[in-house]
Amino acid sequence: MFDVRVTVRLKKGVSDPEGKNTKKALHLLGFDQVKNVNTLRIFDIQLDSVSKKEALNSAEQMCQRLLTNPVVHDYDISIEKM
Amino acid sequence: MFDVRVTVRLKKGVSDPEGKNTKKALHLLGFDQVKNVNTLRIFDIQLDSVSKKEALNSAEQMCQRLLTNPVVHDYDISIEKM
Repeated sequence: MFDVRVTVRLKKGVSDPEGKNTKKALHLLGFDQVKNVNTLRIFDIQLDSVSKKEALNSAEQMCQRLLTNPVVHDYDISIEKM
Repeated sequence: MFDVRVTVRLKKGVSDPEGKNTKKALHLLGFDQVKNVNTLRIFDIQLDSVSKKEALNSAEQMCQRLLTNPVVHDYDISIEKM
């Protein structure tokens, strides 16, 4: 079994409305020291693969086919043996 | 300036519908080796604080007042000087 962590972030230059609204809300609550907020999404996936290489290969395919949108997202994958 | 990373996860025992649906979709795509999927949310916040202690204190308050729901979420905070 492998623990796969996929971190999905917006590409540089792509607007992050959730981050902007969070920043606005924090300012309204009086946190004026907040200069910027970015949001990221993490998928922690437990994979029953035979090797680390196979797990990485599967995770790459999952990112390309479901987890990320290549137009707006960058992602990275980290893998640990359980 | 400090880089504050707030990681928000669901508490143990709290249902993660997004993770469950992601798992279901991955199975439909043929990734049968997927045993479980959990989702996490990260907020990367740039804070203009004078000290690390003040930044940590502010981040704690932000979590309690806006970023997390104490009924369902656990969170941790990491801070780096920029």
